[in-house]
Amino acid sequence: MRTIALLTDFGVRDPYVAAMKGVLASRTDARIADLTHEIEPFDVFGAGWFLSTVWRWWPAGTVFVAVVDPGVGTSRRIVAFERDGRTFLAPDNGLLTFVDDRGGAISVEDESHFLPSNSTTFHGRDRFAPVAAAIANGVSLAVLGPRIDDLVRLDYEPPSYECARVDGTIVAIDRFGNVITDIERSRIAFDRFALRVADAIIDRMATTYADGGDNAFLITGSSGHIEVSTRNDSAAVKLQLKRGDCVTIIPK
Amino acid sequence: MRTIALLTDFGVRDPYVAAMKGVLASRTDARIADLTHEIEPFDVFGAGWFLSTVWRWWPAGTVFVAVVDPGVGTSRRIVAFERDGRTFLAPDNGLLTFVDDRGGAISVEDESHFLPSNSTTFHGRDRFAPVAAAIANGVSLAVLGPRIDDLVRLDYEPPSYECARVDGTIVAIDRFGNVITDIERSRIAFDRFALRVADAIIDRMATTYADGGDNAFLITGSSGHIEVSTRNDSAAVKLQLKRGDCVTIIPK
Amino acid sequence: MRTIALLTDFGVRDPYVAAMKGVLASRTDARIADLTHEIEPFDVFGAGWFLSTVWRWWPAGTVFVAVVDPGVGTSRRIVAFERDGRTFLAPDNGLLTFVDDRGGAISVEDESHFLPSNSTTFHGRDRFAPVAAAIANGVSLAVLGPRIDDLVRLDYEPPSYECARVDGTIVAIDRFGNVITDIERSRIAFDRFALRVADAIIDRMATTYADGGDNAFLITGSSGHIEVSTRNDSAAVKLQLKRGDCVTIIPK
Repeated sequence: MRTIALLTDFGVRDPYVAAMKGVLASRTDARIADLTHEIEPFDVFGAGWFLSTVWRWWPAGTVFVAVVDPGVGTSRRIVAFERDGRTFLAPDNGLLTFVDDRGGAISVEDESHFLPSNSTTFHGRDRFAPVAAAIANGVSLAVLGPRIDDLVRLDYEPPSYECARVDGTIVAIDRFGNVITDIERSRIAFDRFALRVADAIIDRMATTYADGGDNAFLITGSSGHIEVSTRNDSAAVKLQLKRGDCVTIIPK
Repeated sequence: MRTIALLTDFGVRDPYVAAMKGVLASRTDARIADLTHEIEPFDVFGAGWFLSTVWRWWPAGTVFVAVVDPGVGTSRRIVAFERDGRTFLAPDNGLLTFVDDRGGAISVEDESHFLPSNSTTFHGRDRFAPVAAAIANGVSLAVLGPRIDDLVRLDYEPPSYECARVDGTIVAIDRFGNVITDIERSRIAFDRFALRVADAIIDRMATTYADGGDNAFLITGSSGHIEVSTRNDSAAVKLQLKRGDCVTIIPK
Repeated sequence: MRTIALLTDFGVRDPYVAAMKGVLASRTDARIADLTHEIEPFDVFGAGWFLSTVWRWWPAGTVFVAVVDPGVGTSRRIVAFERDGRTFLAPDNGLLTFVDDRGGAISVEDESHFLPSNSTTFHGRDRFAPVAAAIANGVSLAVLGPRIDDLVRLDYEPPSYECARVDGTIVAIDRFGNVITDIERSRIAFDRFALRVADAIIDRMATTYADGGDNAFLITGSSGHIEVSTRNDSAAVKLQLKRGDCVTIIPK
């Protein structure tokens, strides 16, 4: 059974997600799943990073519909591509930056699946949902619009992995207060290391959250990235860290 | 496949929705969908407006179960009707005001589907869920109780559309801070207009949120109603507007 | 159709639930349902009480996966048992205290279903989800690991029901501000009673929330336990009550 997986910044207290799901249920028997609707309003980067950490866990055939869309109604394109059997559909604003399209993206220009309502403020309901339903029902991307090779990408600097230093960035703070960096543990060239952020140095590495103790420690998170944590407390609050802060890994 | 679509003020941190869904899953194979559970506690108007904006997007066969029920356990009735192939089930407190019943409402009085637990505090689980499952399984409304013609309606004044003036009301503030009125753009008799609310006049109309600029502007929202918005900011906070405030549309 | 019902403290703004659901969707066609993901971080007691109030409403065949897991990655066991046709899977930290295992618990030690990623921080995705999928697909608990008889239990004192007095505890505050105790109405030996908590005595009993009036009153909640409520207001805030507070029922 195919699944349509939704990722938005709509929240669930307003009727937007409910309207999108109604359109989907009207047009396809595919299973509808929520990834999240709690992306901060307009936070394209947050949506992109979220998607990058989850998409591989979903089966081939999944259609990911990601709508964080400050440019709704403007000339910004709607884009789609396939990757490893999954399909990705999103506004062309960089949201798919962290899912490599491998050159196969299209611009959705066939309007035959769009709803006639033609609102300029809610393409989630009027364009993304019916196009996603069509894809889940078997319509091929090739008929939805022309190939493009200029997908918008976020202005994001990936970590620099050097022999004696790695520079990276804090990309997320989770609800437990874990501070998640974009530095992959497996790509650090030295075994023993510390993390420097602002004036602080964190040099204790833990294997589990429970073993880490009450002071800040480093841990390899569930996506393989270095995190800063404290046990049963928010490392982000304790160390006053926020998304976008630079971090450096140095040998010790 | 039939869908049972749920709308409540229960939130999801408490076990109430989970119990309702258990009863549904025990009694029907229909698909269970969440519209929202984040209606403010006891906010019958908010639930009614929400439902009015989404129900048409769902396919025929959908059973809407809306439980915002400050009168649970009292003699308030449970009511149901069909409209355009969908079924609506709710406490008789005005929640269905914005979905015209067209005279076909019934009072659910057949207790044979109710759970034996017979609690006075949780009809969502003990009455609404099993009755919704029965309807989704094919039981006809006609056997559930007598016709009624005195459905409770909210004390709500619809907009007055006049030649040179429209008076309406703010009916919702969404998570983006968009201020949503009940005035339908298509029913305004003049082309160029401004909106007056408290001491402010907003006279700039935008086609998309992105084009609107940083000052407050008017836009036709996704349900066709006039909204007040600001780009990437909360118009409600900026202009100190809240639900229930009166607004007037005047020509310019 | 079998259902896998999820209960976690992961929230939904982070990608954890979405990753778990992807693993489930990759491995089983069972229906996936959310009980809640809004358990307070690390609140094992809250998760346990939540589960105790909902599990009976779900049909036989349901697989409950409850992950509130401060000990993730340590030597704490993953445990499972069957009860009345449902299966329960959780970390061995007391979360299942309120669902009597009746001596049939096992420790999940067969690693063949675990994902190879082998992270120490996210067993929800790497162990609980694939094991739950296997169970939903028909794998029997007996092959997943050895019988155990030393399931971890929470340090919880059940109410003492005496002839002229019942001592109990506040176990939950819901979003409506209802104060929920663990005292079962049906086990109180006297008909007319009052509840004493801190310096306050609440001696009015109501049948419905609406009838209760604006001052605090007692009511039998939907799981049969004594609650303290006020109409359209938070009894917890008004009386400054919190989970864990002791309450006493006395005759009047």
